[in-house]
Amino acid sequence: LARLRRVVLERLMRYYRWLSEASFKKPLKTVTSAQIAEALDVDATQVRKDFGSIGLLGMGRVGFDVCEVCRGIRHVLGFDRTNDAVLIGAGHLGSALVNYKGFSVYGLKIVAVFDSDSEKIGEEIGGLRIRSTRSLKPFIRKHNIRLAILTTPGDVAQELTKRLVSVGIIAIWNFTPVRVTVPYGVLVRNAHISLGLSQIAYHLKRQAASNASVSSAWSG
Amino acid sequence: LARLRRVVLERLMRYYRWLSEASFKKPLKTVTSAQIAEALDVDATQVRKDFGSIGLLGMGRVGFDVCEVCRGIRHVLGFDRTNDAVLIGAGHLGSALVNYKGFSVYGLKIVAVFDSDSEKIGEEIGGLRIRSTRSLKPFIRKHNIRLAILTTPGDVAQELTKRLVSVGIIAIWNFTPVRVTVPYGVLVRNAHISLGLSQIAYHLKRQAASNASVSSAWSG
Repeated sequence: LARLRRVVLERLMRYYRWLSEASFKKPLKTVTSAQIAEALDVDATQVRKDFGSIGLLGMGRVGFDVCEVCRGIRHVLGFDRTNDAVLIGAGHLGSALVNYKGFSVYGLKIVAVFDSDSEKIGEEIGGLRIRSTRSLKPFIRKHNIRLAILTTPGDVAQELTKRLVSVGIIAIWNFTPVRVTVPYGVLVRNAHISLGLSQIAYHLKRQAASNASVSSAWSG
Repeated sequence: LARLRRVVLERLMRYYRWLSEASFKKPLKTVTSAQIAEALDVDATQVRKDFGSIGLLGMGRVGFDVCEVCRGIRHVLGFDRTNDAVLIGAGHLGSALVNYKGFSVYGLKIVAVFDSDSEKIGEEIGGLRIRSTRSLKPFIRKHNIRLAILTTPGDVAQELTKRLVSVGIIAIWNFTPVRVTVPYGVLVRNAHISLGLSQIAYHLKRQAASNASVSSAWSG
């Protein structure tokens, strides 16, 4: 199978999530590409193309079998496997991620939490005892961990990444504001939470501007 | 000025963030579209086009004046204004957002935190006292708030959204897993943290598969 591009993976994930939500509200047996397209503001042709790219074929007018689609996407994206992960940085965001219940449907399991702050080490978050970053490398080796989640301050991100990669980490979910470099074959996925603020600030600014012009029109 | 599309806004934000980071490490006076393109894995033509769309013109080979670019982007995106926001849902993620120091550069200021849990009300996070959601509407009216951040469980998201919009909220940053509907003119920006997992899980799955085929080749 050809390697799927990031945008395709993300659309497949959005379809999957919407189907789970929609079926949860009202059990669905079949779904058409038009229904998905409308709900998610995508093109229906795009939906069918994406489904086709992972071998899902519709049944004409009836559309697609929901179970088959969900199973197909889970399988292709790898959500039917469990990926054990270590999380480094037991601050507020780290705690939020450790305590979040929703990752399990995507096969993600955070199995250990690390921090370099001796005041935090030994405490518990989300049922996991916070370990010292000094035990990071032996832990990853021993448990054959492939995925690390970075929620530390940015200034230690690159150095940590180097250590992580040296003991076999091949995927990093980076929540720090810093970009890290990795060798070929290692994936870094940057979680830029702030990115959404570009659209929000822009919207608020435009609304303020149009309100101002309305008032000046009135006063004039 | 024409309304900028979401993808353009996000690219502008990425340029801005990279320029701030890069200048922080080593003060830069000018930058070329090629440098930005290489660092961020975008097309150089695209960079120039995006800059042109907000009225930034390069100086031939020298490239762009970094200060001018940063000022231009800040202004267009509205980061030079302050947007007061209320946050609803004082759980782990809510606390992480309230305590995060990095939002101020984008003009975001969380001024109040609300929760419906009587055990939490009155406690403090990030220097803010948690208020009862019963005082949400009067607070928003009194302080003329336009932006709300939702970090509640998904099942209350739609009902809250309705209440928020009824008292003048025109932008919602939605961290719940649920999609909410709003009237025309109100922006909802969904923060889908899990989206990154599609790429991560897929990468890990492919790596596992290729390792498996390597070992079977060796054993065979």
